[in-house]
Amino acid sequence: MSGLEIIPIDGLPQVVPGDDLADLIGAVAHDLRDGDCLVVTQKVVSKAEGRLVDIDPSDPLGHKPLVEQESVRVLRRRGQLVISETIHGFVCANAGVDVSNVEPGQAALLPVDSDRSARGIRDRLKARRGVDVAVVVSDTFGRPWRRGVTDVAIGCAGIGAIADLRGTRDALGRELQVTEVAIVDEIASAADLVMGKSTNTAVAIVRGLDRNWFRRGNVVEEIVRDPADDLFR
Amino acid sequence: MSGLEIIPIDGLPQVVPGDDLADLIGAVAHDLRDGDCLVVTQKVVSKAEGRLVDIDPSDPLGHKPLVEQESVRVLRRRGQLVISETIHGFVCANAGVDVSNVEPGQAALLPVDSDRSARGIRDRLKARRGVDVAVVVSDTFGRPWRRGVTDVAIGCAGIGAIADLRGTRDALGRELQVTEVAIVDEIASAADLVMGKSTNTAVAIVRGLDRNWFRRGNVVEEIVRDPADDLFR
Repeated sequence: MSGLEIIPIDGLPQVVPGDDLADLIGAVAHDLRDGDCLVVTQKVVSKAEGRLVDIDPSDPLGHKPLVEQESVRVLRRRGQLVISETIHGFVCANAGVDVSNVEPGQAALLPVDSDRSARGIRDRLKARRGVDVAVVVSDTFGRPWRRGVTDVAIGCAGIGAIADLRGTRDALGRELQVTEVAIVDEIASAADLVMGKSTNTAVAIVRGLDRNWFRRGNVVEEIVRDPADDLFR
Repeated sequence: MSGLEIIPIDGLPQVVPGDDLADLIGAVAHDLRDGDCLVVTQKVVSKAEGRLVDIDPSDPLGHKPLVEQESVRVLRRRGQLVISETIHGFVCANAGVDVSNVEPGQAALLPVDSDRSARGIRDRLKARRGVDVAVVVSDTFGRPWRRGVTDVAIGCAGIGAIADLRGTRDALGRELQVTEVAIVDEIASAADLVMGKSTNTAVAIVRGLDRNWFRRGNVVEEIVRDPADDLFR
């Protein structure tokens, strides 16, 4: 397999509700190619989709009722930190409700259906630019046991969330035991390396991915673990 | 910030105990440059360091006593699966003991100190090739709540495990809340996208990382969460 390029896309304007994100991205990503994977951060998807809620700008905890509203189950609380399962099935801090990179007095919620959001961007770019790209919507999550946050996928389109290597053989000819790789999470992490957290870069291209990975794809269906199978819920 | 390249390094021979891994890598990575980050999978590090243990090849559970030996605390058991905290502080399946990509009748343990392993590779490449590269030792871990495995870092040298963005400001000028990015985990995940699990590619170069991230770095010190701070242990 040959290499990958991770290309940050700068110049996206501040996104506001009602914006056509595919058009905005298309206007700044001049060199989109078939087989590229476009990684779009959740914040601009939420803004374009109007997932912004007014909160009291003088109250540092003004967004907290939204966390409860976006959660179906609280796993842990410590101080102001809530780790909960969201209405989408993700387990993360504060149910993905975020007040960074939004206007004061507002909080951003996760998109209602980030897989659908990814499909929308992919389909519009195909229709208007004639280019066949995969799309991953990324967000920044913490992890138990390991310090530091990493970016993961909360939605995808045109690429499988998981690459299933079951039945393939290792370099010594034996069947592999570790089988299902969460490639969309690895793609989101790779893209974060060029985004920075303090700049305005909300979009990156990952170029050179294995074309066998390009198929329908759905993060919620493929990645969210059934609570009954989950040893930590 | 400009882009990244992720370049798989093919042609590494089968590694055996006593091999000088830095020399083997240097012989196949012809275009190493200052500021590159070399990602090396745990398996070849463990092999070079002789972290191989003979097990009964006719017993599919022959490696299980090693899992207990490498664990300081078992978090969960289900069937044959053990999720435990290793002697290094990592929480993972089977304490990192692995029988894939090793000879039948052997199991590979994690390196004793993967940060030291990374330093050794970095220092030898500097001494012999005159090139100043960061090194990340990667392994494949599962996660709670999300299906599929991803690669994370278990050791690093010449690069900080965490990039601390505390005090920097978001695009709207406010101080960021999410602060510490586990860049070495994101680098390990990015590299995995070019490795494949069934090929012999055990090394990749990540080129173009932010030079501000290059410093001493240590995965166990920076990433392993203190159990007292951990809501899920």
